Amino acid sequence: MTKYVYEFHEGNGKMRELLGGKGAGLAEMTNLGISVPPGFTLTTDICTYYYEHGQSYPAELETEVKAALAEVERVMGRKFGDPNNPLLFSVRSGARASMPGMMDTILNLGLNDKTVEGLAQITGNPRFAWDSYRRFVTMYGDVVLGLKPTSKTEEDPFEVILERVKQEAGAPFDTDLSTQDLQRLVKLYKDEIKQKLGLDFPEDVHQQLWGAIGAVFGSWMNDRAIAYRKLYEIPASWGTACNVQTMVFGNRGETSGTGVGFTRDPALGTNQMYGEFLMNAQGEDVVAGIRTPRPISELAIAMPDSYKQLVEIRDKLESHFRDMQDFEFTIEEDKLWMLQTRTGKRHPFAAARMAVDMEAEGLISEKEAVLRPEADGMAAFLAPIFDSKAKAQAIKDGNLLAEGLPAGPGGAFGRVVFNATDAEAWKARGEKVLLIRKFTSPEDIRGMDAAQGILTAQGGMTSHAALVARQMGKVCIVGCAALNIDYEKAEMVVNNHIIKEGDWLSIDGFTAEVILGQLPTTPSEVLQVFAGQRKAEDSKTYQQFIKLITWADKYRRLEVWTNADTPKQAEQAVQLGAQGIGLCRTEHMFFEGDRIHYVRRMILSDTKEEREEALAFLFPMQKQDFIGLYKAMKGFPVTIRLLDPPLHEFLPSREALKPEAFKEKVSQIAKELGVTEEVIEERIEALHESNPMLGHRGCRLGVTFPEISQMQIRAIIEAACEVAKEGLPVQPDIMIPVVGTVQEMKYFAEMSRRIADEIIARYGVELHYLVGTMIELPRACVVADKIAQYAEFFSFGTNDLTQTACGISRDDTKGFMAAYVEKEIFASDPFQKLDREGVGELMKMAVSKGKATRPDLQIGICGEHGGEPTSVEFCHTIGLDYVSCSPLRLPVARLAAAQAALKEALGEKEK
Amino acid sequence: MTKYVYEFHEGNGKMRELLGGKGAGLAEMTNLGISVPPGFTLTTDICTYYYEHGQSYPAELETEVKAALAEVERVMGRKFGDPNNPLLFSVRSGARASMPGMMDTILNLGLNDKTVEGLAQITGNPRFAWDSYRRFVTMYGDVVLGLKPTSKTEEDPFEVILERVKQEAGAPFDTDLSTQDLQRLVKLYKDEIKQKLGLDFPEDVHQQLWGAIGAVFGSWMNDRAIAYRKLYEIPASWGTACNVQTMVFGNRGETSGTGVGFTRDPALGTNQMYGEFLMNAQGEDVVAGIRTPRPISELAIAMPDSYKQLVEIRDKLESHFRDMQDFEFTIEEDKLWMLQTRTGKRHPFAAARMAVDMEAEGLISEKEAVLRPEADGMAAFLAPIFDSKAKAQAIKDGNLLAEGLPAGPGGAFGRVVFNATDAEAWKARGEKVLLIRKFTSPEDIRGMDAAQGILTAQGGMTSHAALVARQMGKVCIVGCAALNIDYEKAEMVVNNHIIKEGDWLSIDGFTAEVILGQLPTTPSEVLQVFAGQRKAEDSKTYQQFIKLITWADKYRRLEVWTNADTPKQAEQAVQLGAQGIGLCRTEHMFFEGDRIHYVRRMILSDTKEEREEALAFLFPMQKQDFIGLYKAMKGFPVTIRLLDPPLHEFLPSREALKPEAFKEKVSQIAKELGVTEEVIEERIEALHESNPMLGHRGCRLGVTFPEISQMQIRAIIEAACEVAKEGLPVQPDIMIPVVGTVQEMKYFAEMSRRIADEIIARYGVELHYLVGTMIELPRACVVADKIAQYAEFFSFGTNDLTQTACGISRDDTKGFMAAYVEKEIFASDPFQKLDREGVGELMKMAVSKGKATRPDLQIGICGEHGGEPTSVEFCHTIGLDYVSCSPLRLPVARLAAAQAALKEALGEKEK
Repeated sequence: MTKYVYEFHEGNGKMRELLGGKGAGLAEMTNLGISVPPGFTLTTDICTYYYEHGQSYPAELETEVKAALAEVERVMGRKFGDPNNPLLFSVRSGARASMPGMMDTILNLGLNDKTVEGLAQITGNPRFAWDSYRRFVTMYGDVVLGLKPTSKTEEDPFEVILERVKQEAGAPFDTDLSTQDLQRLVKLYKDEIKQKLGLDFPEDVHQQLWGAIGAVFGSWMNDRAIAYRKLYEIPASWGTACNVQTMVFGNRGETSGTGVGFTRDPALGTNQMYGEFLMNAQGEDVVAGIRTPRPISELAIAMPDSYKQLVEIRDKLESHFRDMQDFEFTIEEDKLWMLQTRTGKRHPFAAARMAVDMEAEGLISEKEAVLRPEADGMAAFLAPIFDSKAKAQAIKDGNLLAEGLPAGPGGAFGRVVFNATDAEAWKARGEKVLLIRKFTSPEDIRGMDAAQGILTAQGGMTSHAALVARQMGKVCIVGCAALNIDYEKAEMVVNNHIIKEGDWLSIDGFTAEVILGQLPTTPSEVLQVFAGQRKAEDSKTYQQFIKLITWADKYRRLEVWTNADTPKQAEQAVQLGAQGIGLCRTEHMFFEGDRIHYVRRMILSDTKEEREEALAFLFPMQKQDFIGLYKAMKGFPVTIRLLDPPLHEFLPSREALKPEAFKEKVSQIAKELGVTEEVIEERIEALHESNPMLGHRGCRLGVTFPEISQMQIRAIIEAACEVAKEGLPVQPDIMIPVVGTVQEMKYFAEMSRRIADEIIARYGVELHYLVGTMIELPRACVVADKIAQYAEFFSFGTNDLTQTACGISRDDTKGFMAAYVEKEIFASDPFQKLDREGVGELMKMAVSKGKATRPDLQIGICGEHGGEPTSVEFCHTIGLDYVSCSPLRLPVARLAAAQAALKEALGEKEK
Repeated sequence: MTKYVYEFHEGNGKMRELLGGKGAGLAEMTNLGISVPPGFTLTTDICTYYYEHGQSYPAELETEVKAALAEVERVMGRKFGDPNNPLLFSVRSGARASMPGMMDTILNLGLNDKTVEGLAQITGNPRFAWDSYRRFVTMYGDVVLGLKPTSKTEEDPFEVILERVKQEAGAPFDTDLSTQDLQRLVKLYKDEIKQKLGLDFPEDVHQQLWGAIGAVFGSWMNDRAIAYRKLYEIPASWGTACNVQTMVFGNRGETSGTGVGFTRDPALGTNQMYGEFLMNAQGEDVVAGIRTPRPISELAIAMPDSYKQLVEIRDKLESHFRDMQDFEFTIEEDKLWMLQTRTGKRHPFAAARMAVDMEAEGLISEKEAVLRPEADGMAAFLAPIFDSKAKAQAIKDGNLLAEGLPAGPGGAFGRVVFNATDAEAWKARGEKVLLIRKFTSPEDIRGMDAAQGILTAQGGMTSHAALVARQMGKVCIVGCAALNIDYEKAEMVVNNHIIKEGDWLSIDGFTAEVILGQLPTTPSEVLQVFAGQRKAEDSKTYQQFIKLITWADKYRRLEVWTNADTPKQAEQAVQLGAQGIGLCRTEHMFFEGDRIHYVRRMILSDTKEEREEALAFLFPMQKQDFIGLYKAMKGFPVTIRLLDPPLHEFLPSREALKPEAFKEKVSQIAKELGVTEEVIEERIEALHESNPMLGHRGCRLGVTFPEISQMQIRAIIEAACEVAKEGLPVQPDIMIPVVGTVQEMKYFAEMSRRIADEIIARYGVELHYLVGTMIELPRACVVADKIAQYAEFFSFGTNDLTQTACGISRDDTKGFMAAYVEKEIFASDPFQKLDREGVGELMKMAVSKGKATRPDLQIGICGEHGGEPTSVEFCHTIGLDYVSCSPLRLPVARLAAAQAALKEALGEKEK
């Protein structure tokens, strides 16, 4: 028989799937001998059952809950609903993965008009009892009964009543309310519920409990939770558990309090306990971010004993869980109770730094340090930061608006918006925005995702804003009390400055400074060290970065190459670990300087001879480009793709430009080339394509205009020969784009080898070069065995392969991609994460067919997926030789490649 | 050891691959006891060797040729190069497949200044001897030595000299030239060769022979031959043979002659010997089409004995070869010699009719009759013909210009052009052209292919023009002597009418009438019978058509469905054998009448509600459409595809229209819909796509606007229920377009079944329907096993599948497709013939994966390949259930399907 209810001591930390994260953490702490208020967990199986059976419970549940309740009553020596000695409970959700603030919580459950008197009596504190009661009525009324604002602009109905009572009582703060005021509040709340919903507030404590349980399971499918799961790819099938726990009170006066914390700094990764507390308060006050709490270090002064205990528990938790924990505690009349522990979310930057530290502390192994951080987080080490001189100047100029708490490192600027919907909308039309809120709530996550950075007036380091921002890797400042936000006017007043919606603002997530205008940015510390602008020994960040990435390199099998078109990019890529250039787009070179002039002359040519004349001008320039690239790559392979885009891309576009701008551009080009405007317009007309993505491009250009390919091949090989003549190592690889048939590959391989071998013989040098192809058409995958007869390497162009395999133009997804991800037709955008099932299957086919023909076929990927961790993992799995990505994604790819290798080894061990 | 030379009696008719068609035919005739001038064949192996060894011959060749020569000398009792009793030869190419006029021929080889005297002496006819000599020098000078016009406008240098000598001699015709004139000609020709080429004409007969052999093998790679092979997909690797045959002379006076013929009429298929002859002439005079010969029936009067022999041989050949033969003969002083026999090329229309006749005659079996005609030829039975009333009126109006010989049946009109290059160029810019030439030559084939029809002033039914036109299935009239063509002026005078380039002309290939202007056309005889406008018993064509197609239906396994959008199309399709509708494009219905108004209202809707309101107007119209279709299809399945094209196709296109036209259209629509022009333009802007082929279309529309799909599904099923309520049979199938993922299929299958089952229950009828999908994306092929979980049928949309698999937009091939076919990167345009290697492989994958999941999965094809014979064969091979094509292609598909089944059975038998 399935067991549906676990008392805390019956579970353990490994039972996350069944008990959820919170339940498993409470069980583990209980077993570790840490004081945890007793209680029990309703398993995630119930949630699954609930949704599979029309929102009803298994028959045996009621009996099991009764038994668990009785056991808690026995341990505590109090009774649930006993008017004389009442036992109170909190009821909270707790899924397998943490979903901060997404689902619902009820505190002080078990209070009614009778038990409140009992609580008053046993605590000797009627004010406390009634304060607890009015809080319970508020939460229950909102969460279980559903009395909520009916629109975004409407205020919370409970808040309205509270404000009115405070005003009438002349009480500026909640704490100034008297017992009578609180009694009146409870009555007014209940009246409001009766009036608005036609419901009587339940006096029966069991009815209260089942209502709360229903709300918890129900909250698994609320819009916020669904949106959150989508964002973090949490399957709906996991379900949530529900924890019923004895209430302890942090609001029983000045010897009570409550707090939350992290065993390390979750924003910067520093190894020190980090957190906040509020005296005489309940836990939700801290997490909600409504009151700005005090830093945890001050607890040492406020309650030294509790602080000491907390430090001990912190050490116990870290050494037990071997990872940073995020915890909640409550102090009830000097007694410390732990309410939660779980692996804490951290900024990706902190995750990487922390992993390095923990290895040094001996807490985790080197492999664990490599496996732990999300590979994507490596990008944070390279993200631009504010230019220090410019910032100093801005501050000198009086542009420092305010300071808050640093909750997400990095520098970000954007135009100010005051709500999440605007953030999404502005982003959609191409604006950079900063989202500014009094505090954020789960409804805001999409907007947070759309923003460059987040700034809140209230809340601490563990507030919703801070937590979510860290997880998203966003720049974030919280608790910036100086902000005076007026949502209705869409503006805020900050130290006498008025900041309106749309104004530019900069926020520094390292220092928590809020600065007027757009601050110029500068390369990150790591890049500064690489550029020689900062000493390695002065940058702990750099040292940690190097340590982690060096470890990663020990474990990865995949090589990591880069997509680069200039010597400068190539140099940076080599510093960042590139072992080759996987894609040099020669067309990029065609746009530089006055080259476009010759390119246009070539396009306007009517004969091969005219074309060759124009190409003769381009030849020495391309050759110089390649010499530069080869030298920068110091002998690593340099894969150069022949001209790829359709020729019309080099002429003005009637669709992209407004009519006047188009006319003007045409007229300018006509003048430059000494032809009439009609000639230009006619050529534009002739080159126009309905679907340029599927048009006259790639190797098709070289079939119709072989002289273009010939010029490029000559430039590639002559450049290499000249470098070789200087005695420098060089490895040029010629890549043919958009190949779909073996005949194309044969045509270009023969052309390339004929030209190359002739040049090499002429120079009399030793030169190793390869001729291969992009695999970017489904047909190429299908006939990969044949193509491999002539191709010495394959490089998956997964951007185009995704477009053609899925029949989706990357430029034309605006109308449906959001709906597709929303409706789970795509698990994620296939242009961001490689579509393993479809595109991936074609890749596997190409790999296996290609290798069948040519066992030593070199295979890589140069689509943008090459820098995306899950795609890198897939490339590892199917046995590619390298991934190629943009220079700044190299550390991500290196770590992802190492993680893929380590996971594979672990998986094999498990087998 | 390889044998390189076969005397005629050593070979046989089955050795086509080795001896070429001509060589095999000569061998077979020799063995049949038909009188054939003795000779020998140099095999195609030599041709292959020649091109693989830098144009040199195998070492043993010379010895073998010598031996064969000696044997002929022995049989003929004459000697090659003997001044007293010279043996003369013809040297001709002869490939495995007939390539009329593509390669070179030399006659009278073995004449020189000495042997000419010997020939004069033994024939007693010096004029004949010198006439033969001057012909030989002309041919050899042109073909072997290469004295040709250097430009298209330059006249043939031999012709120039001939004209001069004729003028000086006062001789209007060649036959008026005296022996002295001819002697002078030979001298002048040789001088010209010496002067222009610096070569002495070879006196050594062996040097002559090897020169001629070299020219024959060399001609395999001349431009014309290459172009011809491309057109008819003849591999270059086949090579040509070379036949060396004793000369017999049709030009030895009034008891000599030469002719060519067919055992039946190759244009109309009638069972009567067909051909032409010239008295006192050599064979090339007939084939070249320069002199208009006399019909073969007149030979009965001119040379009754030879005619009788010829009729006997004709019967012998037909009963021996069991197929129509095309033959050449020469009568030398009353002795009939056969020079060639081979299976004759025929107009596709004739091929079909002939097959039916031959079965009736007991010459071939029913299966052979089905296998023999090219399936494409069935389209000729349905091609429009001229409207008889209109033609009568045109003739009454004096618009009948002239009459010629009917060489290709059908009615065609077009604008007059006078050379092949123009025909190609005009066609390329979208014009319909008629190609008019004095006579055609192999250089003209591309232009002939580009023309609607061909009209020549000279040449008979076996002239180059007639032969090629028949093979291409073109409408053609030859030998229309009234045409007086002036190439330089680009005009012709015909019975006092001046016809200039660009004028419209009509030609009737059945009656050989040339008529001024564009004659209106009318449906073909077969379609007239179907339409009840002509009685079946009055139309032999109809009867033959029905007979053949009925046989075909006995043998085919594939069902044949149709693509139809209207009841009228559906009715015609059923008459033409459709067993279902494989594709009804609902968007076609959206354009009819005032519907486009509501479609546009829907597109301009901002909310679901507005969209639903517009859709409510469309619903009853769509429903009526479907009722009409169902009734027309009488219970056959009707596969209806949900809306497919991107919505912008229903609004004016800024790219397709000129700015003013666009403005005007927008303004008109704005007025109609009662909105501003800005609203329309903004929506057009918003819907604009870079690659609409890969954009927001197909089922993607239904994911974002489910209400559109829902309306269509409702209309499909309600219409079916109403038809069923009337007690009529009906089978509606719902087809989801552009599916790439199982999630899409699931979404639409569930939506369809939910809506359908609700409606069916409401109507209380029995209704069987299927839900399935187009397979038109590579990804769909890859995940076909998953898609088949929800799809009850697959229908390959091979147009789009080809576009996506090959990454080629069908609309954008203009820049490179010609070069691709030219350079043999594609064997043929993959949009015309299914690309088996690429697209076909994906189809096989989809079939096997789909059937693995759902063994009874129904699979068809509804792309345009469904009516193309080689593609139909492929569909048969991979086990599809049906092909669906446009109504007029149904007979082609039926015959192709039968041929595929029969070929498969033959193939299995062979195993």
